[in-house]
Amino acid sequence: MVNEKAKKYGGQGSAIRTLFEYGKKRKKIVGPENVFDFSIGNPSTPAPKEFNETLIKIINECDPVLLHSYTSAIGEAKAREAIVDNLNKRYDAGLDRHYVYITCGAAAGLTITLKAIATSEDDEAIVFAPFFPEYTVFIENAGLKEVIVNPDENMLPDFVDLENKITEKTRVIIMDSPNNPTGVVYGEEVIQKLADLLNKKQKEYGHEIFLISDEPYRELNFSGKKYPFVTRYYDNSVVVYSFSKSLSLPGERIGYIAVNPKSEHVVDLFNAINGAGRLMGFVNAPALFQHALPYVIDMVSNFDDYLVNRELLYKGLTELGYEVIYPEGAFYMFVKSLEEDDFKFSSRAKDFDILVAPSTPFGVKGYVRIAYCCSTEQIKNSMKAFKALKESYER
Amino acid sequence: MVNEKAKKYGGQGSAIRTLFEYGKKRKKIVGPENVFDFSIGNPSTPAPKEFNETLIKIINECDPVLLHSYTSAIGEAKAREAIVDNLNKRYDAGLDRHYVYITCGAAAGLTITLKAIATSEDDEAIVFAPFFPEYTVFIENAGLKEVIVNPDENMLPDFVDLENKITEKTRVIIMDSPNNPTGVVYGEEVIQKLADLLNKKQKEYGHEIFLISDEPYRELNFSGKKYPFVTRYYDNSVVVYSFSKSLSLPGERIGYIAVNPKSEHVVDLFNAINGAGRLMGFVNAPALFQHALPYVIDMVSNFDDYLVNRELLYKGLTELGYEVIYPEGAFYMFVKSLEEDDFKFSSRAKDFDILVAPSTPFGVKGYVRIAYCCSTEQIKNSMKAFKALKESYER
Repeated sequence: MVNEKAKKYGGQGSAIRTLFEYGKKRKKIVGPENVFDFSIGNPSTPAPKEFNETLIKIINECDPVLLHSYTSAIGEAKAREAIVDNLNKRYDAGLDRHYVYITCGAAAGLTITLKAIATSEDDEAIVFAPFFPEYTVFIENAGLKEVIVNPDENMLPDFVDLENKITEKTRVIIMDSPNNPTGVVYGEEVIQKLADLLNKKQKEYGHEIFLISDEPYRELNFSGKKYPFVTRYYDNSVVVYSFSKSLSLPGERIGYIAVNPKSEHVVDLFNAINGAGRLMGFVNAPALFQHALPYVIDMVSNFDDYLVNRELLYKGLTELGYEVIYPEGAFYMFVKSLEEDDFKFSSRAKDFDILVAPSTPFGVKGYVRIAYCCSTEQIKNSMKAFKALKESYER
Repeated sequence: MVNEKAKKYGGQGSAIRTLFEYGKKRKKIVGPENVFDFSIGNPSTPAPKEFNETLIKIINECDPVLLHSYTSAIGEAKAREAIVDNLNKRYDAGLDRHYVYITCGAAAGLTITLKAIATSEDDEAIVFAPFFPEYTVFIENAGLKEVIVNPDENMLPDFVDLENKITEKTRVIIMDSPNNPTGVVYGEEVIQKLADLLNKKQKEYGHEIFLISDEPYRELNFSGKKYPFVTRYYDNSVVVYSFSKSLSLPGERIGYIAVNPKSEHVVDLFNAINGAGRLMGFVNAPALFQHALPYVIDMVSNFDDYLVNRELLYKGLTELGYEVIYPEGAFYMFVKSLEEDDFKFSSRAKDFDILVAPSTPFGVKGYVRIAYCCSTEQIKNSMKAFKALKESYER
């Protein structure tokens, strides 16, 4: 007898991970060049050379005992300072290093923040479809109830649906822009509208509604739009960040939680974040990568390949007659399924060795997600398969 | 309004951490050489030079995209293999890499395993006093009830008390040897007696009772006793390990969970462990350190200083008339408080700039814990202060 919820999530794996594991096996059978694996958001561009040089410099020059020692639970002061300086300079974000907590990536940032915020079994967490499917898992871990808000025709939150779904039980809203899976980037007017609505609703219900902005793709904003940093628009906001995509470090687990100093009960909230991390056994984020942060805070990976891939893929697929949402950021493309059931479509694509994630787990039916963080070669070679897939529906 | 439990644990900090933070401030006022900080178990001996050289070699030679990529959620196959080979060779442990899950240290190993095991709010977790105080936090996170078993006169579990406290509700028992805070090492006869009792009780109640062996100090066994590896004695056992102390890497968060393949429902349990990690947002343990494991699995730090410190401290304190438990392992010494209330005694010691942790949070009254993972110089210099502290009670 074991915990049923944990068994379920451990046994099934996510739809994306399952596809990814299938791809690894399939490549061994038919050769890696014949499997068009667009399943997972694993950066295909390496961390900057200078990043790795920084790691080596730190290993060589840091006091050897200090190098791998425990850090403060909330993270090294210098790393928190570097994060805050960078964001305040770029966005006039108004952050304070006393309210920054360094985490093992954005996943930990989300589970910790959600746990810190959850006060009762009846509390609700709103997500904007389409959304990263692990949100469902993290919300369940915190003991919150998930409420899904539908998208409008531009894959932005439908504000009419949102207003209907905010109730007295709403504790928190999670947004991410650039969006996984669509690549849509929220403009300033969206954030302002959201802030206005939440302020109105907070007044109406007499309690805080937290807004978590999950920003692993922040540096992959290719829209030309100014990034509207959420702390400037809404007081009860929390930014969750990861260096996984910006520096291509998904395996190292380094990111942060930045609580808006203007939050109503900022000290309590920050203490609860610290306590939630302690309860779950996080102790501190990996020390070596914390030591690196002050030196690498302004670096990003080279994103050129993603831009080349985006153009090639968009042009190729639209020419074949696919209906595609042109992504403004991240490295995902949302493509309309050629039949109603996106699981069936994803499965049919698999017959052509195209691995694309069905959209239902993202909270929207009838699409697939293409993760184009792959080699440009793969995009080019996949076109014949996409053509054959399309034709298979026209027979 | 935030989560009260999380706020409590974030706001108060552990007694040990609070003392440690005080020490840092005090050192700035009176000079670091005048504060005898024995509060925290932060290794004072560095990671082996060869360990750091391995990291650099990996950074330089690994495929740059693969280097920092996501790993499997359960960890790199090669790292899991290295762990299993090492343990099977040294202990004939009977482990299987399919049931090894690499974690962000032992704290994560414990929170994940406890969550995987917890099935109901009524489930009880037994700990053997004295125990690492964070167990209380991790047990609470899993929604289990803590039950404390008293020690016998040798600071081993009192088996009469244990037998009385195992009930139908007992789901899991946590042990750690070498023990934090006493340094006591369990001999084979203790483990065998425990296994016999648990097997009897499992039969009586008709369900599994899991035994978690928390082993961050396993390589710091200076007792001369053979280490009785728990999987050889009891089927429903789980080993939780950390490289924090053996390789002096506490800040990097790398360790593992090894489930005994002979566990009754090993597949379900392992899936639940995987799912519990996913629920809490662990994703994977830091990739760079996973890549290093196959090369460093047989390395340990140089523990010579700990042995020198142990002898100096033991001799010095007993000569001054303190009642001390001679530690067989780890780097802690348990010393009888000179007054009934160990908080008061710890506080009096603080007046002499001696920072030692009171024993009540460890589940036993009337002692303090001395973490002697410090410079030998500090031990020598502290003796005058320990003398003055003793004399302050004799006036």
